[in-house]
Amino acid sequence: MRAIIQVAFKKTVLDPQGRAITQALQSHGHEEILGVRQGKFFEIDLAPGTSRETARSNLERLAAEVLSNPVIEDYEVTVLEPS
Amino acid sequence: MRAIIQVAFKKTVLDPQGRAITQALQSHGHEEILGVRQGKFFEIDLAPGTSRETARSNLERLAAEVLSNPVIEDYEVTVLEPS
Repeated sequence: MRAIIQVAFKKTVLDPQGRAITQALQSHGHEEILGVRQGKFFEIDLAPGTSRETARSNLERLAAEVLSNPVIEDYEVTVLEPS
Repeated sequence: MRAIIQVAFKKTVLDPQGRAITQALQSHGHEEILGVRQGKFFEIDLAPGTSRETARSNLERLAAEVLSNPVIEDYEVTVLEPS
């Protein structure tokens, strides 16, 4: 089973890297791009037999306590169907 | 309209940051976690009226030429439905 945790700055927090990318792309003629925000993601392989409920609750805790800074970042946990 | 570009190391390339995270989580008792790979994503706001086809072809080119290093990284472009 796999899961994805996405972490990005809250919308209310300035994202200087995203803004730099936006300006670089616009100055290269990409006027259709209004804004870019950058974030990171963690693709997590879970042991077979882990229940979805256990996985989700463990990963929610990890995302909140270890993988993100809840003062300035939001996170989103997605548990994928076993492939 | 919004789009997401995900960029991550190719599966064949060692991801030292992902490996460090894996080891840290396992040593904290998360034996259910077999592996973690880290990547980044770009959330892109596109001007209203941009066609999906134009958006996709522009973003594919940007992803390949500017936002990723095709020698060691893979990318994935997802154009989201207008909300």
